[in-house]
Amino acid sequence: MFASVEAPSESTRREAVARHEQLTKPLGALGRLEEIGVWVAACQGQCPPKPFARPRVVIFAGDHGIARHGVSAFPSEVTAQMVANFLTGGAAINVLAATAGATVRVVDMSVDSDGTGLPEQVTAHKVRRSSGAIDREDALTADEVVAAIEAGKAIADEEIDGGADLLIAGDMGIGNTTPAAVLIAALTGAEPVAVVGRGTGIDDQTWMRKAVAIRDALRRARRVSADPIALLRTAAGADIAAMAAFLAQAAVRRTPVILDGVIAGAAALAAEELAPGAAQWWIAGHRSVEPAHTLVLDHLDLKPVLELDMRLGEGSGAAAALPLVAMAARILAEMATFADAGVTEKPE
Amino acid sequence: MFASVEAPSESTRREAVARHEQLTKPLGALGRLEEIGVWVAACQGQCPPKPFARPRVVIFAGDHGIARHGVSAFPSEVTAQMVANFLTGGAAINVLAATAGATVRVVDMSVDSDGTGLPEQVTAHKVRRSSGAIDREDALTADEVVAAIEAGKAIADEEIDGGADLLIAGDMGIGNTTPAAVLIAALTGAEPVAVVGRGTGIDDQTWMRKAVAIRDALRRARRVSADPIALLRTAAGADIAAMAAFLAQAAVRRTPVILDGVIAGAAALAAEELAPGAAQWWIAGHRSVEPAHTLVLDHLDLKPVLELDMRLGEGSGAAAALPLVAMAARILAEMATFADAGVTEKPE
Repeated sequence: MFASVEAPSESTRREAVARHEQLTKPLGALGRLEEIGVWVAACQGQCPPKPFARPRVVIFAGDHGIARHGVSAFPSEVTAQMVANFLTGGAAINVLAATAGATVRVVDMSVDSDGTGLPEQVTAHKVRRSSGAIDREDALTADEVVAAIEAGKAIADEEIDGGADLLIAGDMGIGNTTPAAVLIAALTGAEPVAVVGRGTGIDDQTWMRKAVAIRDALRRARRVSADPIALLRTAAGADIAAMAAFLAQAAVRRTPVILDGVIAGAAALAAEELAPGAAQWWIAGHRSVEPAHTLVLDHLDLKPVLELDMRLGEGSGAAAALPLVAMAARILAEMATFADAGVTEKPE
Repeated sequence: MFASVEAPSESTRREAVARHEQLTKPLGALGRLEEIGVWVAACQGQCPPKPFARPRVVIFAGDHGIARHGVSAFPSEVTAQMVANFLTGGAAINVLAATAGATVRVVDMSVDSDGTGLPEQVTAHKVRRSSGAIDREDALTADEVVAAIEAGKAIADEEIDGGADLLIAGDMGIGNTTPAAVLIAALTGAEPVAVVGRGTGIDDQTWMRKAVAIRDALRRARRVSADPIALLRTAAGADIAAMAAFLAQAAVRRTPVILDGVIAGAAALAAEELAPGAAQWWIAGHRSVEPAHTLVLDHLDLKPVLELDMRLGEGSGAAAALPLVAMAARILAEMATFADAGVTEKPE
């Protein structure tokens, strides 16, 4: 379903490394900002890289049948309420994206509402309402998972064709850390108890129900874990399946991505299966407090930019990292060289 | 020399904590961004806090006599060259500050040049050229250290009176990690070897010369470590002394500061001695790779926002953290509450 993923430009990468040696600072003194700048240049295939013209957050919203079984601190109705909040600009991601110079789009993939009153751009790709309760049934039908993947791919194409040159995938969906934990355990081989987190802030009793749900769902998911499409059908939901396709297609389209936390991380693991090599086009914006997220980072060998104990989703951790990625790119583009500035270089 | 430091507003702090409970996100889900927002509100004495109108970086430039003794990878002439680079906008701090929405001022406190061609705003507070080699003589005379402290205080007043509502102190000075290490060892009780870092990137032989210089300077500095003004005279230099006074006066003037790395950290330790309680007005922007910086963070009980292996100085690590501090403030100011947005709260 996906074209093959090329690597970011190796020759541009080398050019960016060499440029860093010429800028008026001790080599390596900007630490990870130097590495990130080199990665941006390699993704763009040009050094110095251009500043991001249209960084874009796309929030994939969907409900989850498993939420009816008491795995979350909030009721499912909050998903649709938060979609409305995104559209009026009142959510955390709106504020973070605005500060970072990014714009926000929300897509209703599988919110448990009829979508009345929502703009066409939000609902155009909707696959269904909610998902099957994954501890006992598949999240999606065979047709629905294909529709969700095609939608995620189409959304990536729409955004990139519309000028987006840096993408962030955000999530909104009460109960969504449960399918994410199942996907992560299935794809990394972790035990259920290692992936159960507190989500929006659940108490011990809810945590135990969630652990049981994850254990049961994982039993179903492990059978199909070698087939990413079957795995997404069994254990994801239309929101996470679409997000996985979006991340895969971004890589196919040579567009860099800042990954968010545990939901984007689960989708990223699946995306790397759908489109091997896609992870080269991603940087980890942050490390979530959700324990399963660290498994994702280790599995994909990604080192997060931020570690701020965040656990909100919506793309918030990625948006928080965006200014640093923008700085890293601008450093390569805008700093003077030793020659330009007449500054004496470090003697050999 | 400094008026007493008041604490940030405790009642506003409580108000900000309570407001976070009303915003449309699970409580605590933004992790450290929530804590930082609360701190900004408490500093401003108003909740929600206003967005920063004039974040300002002031770079304190000065040369160090000890650099003549082979403790740095770069020659001292680079300090004056970099002052020129700051003024034409080609340095890392210019790019980082511009991305973060801050402006940059550079003050020549003790650069080893005659300052020809530099604007009055840069040289108005200059105390002397370079400093004494601190392994064998005092950095400054008794008059010079008072002049440097008065200058730092005056610069803070100028900036705050000019509308600056968030301050960053940056440094530029070849050799300046040596006096910083001495100050930090003197004020934290650390052994010389624990504070010797690689600075701009020195080789092993230079490292050994630097370790000897720090050991010798520390022997002189420990005698006066109970008296911050005598300590700054003995082991700092006009740049670091002025920076310490700037940080102290910012706290007296109730103006929040993002601290940079090891040089700002050394100045901050001295500032806390000059104006006890000042540290309440500071947040640590990052953790530098310089080993002495971690001693500062531990001593002042500050947890850095970023850990990106930076070691440039200039205020760069603080400027990199500025967008996150701005986000933290805007979250409190701009997010919708559950009531505003009609989002269901977490049931008790």
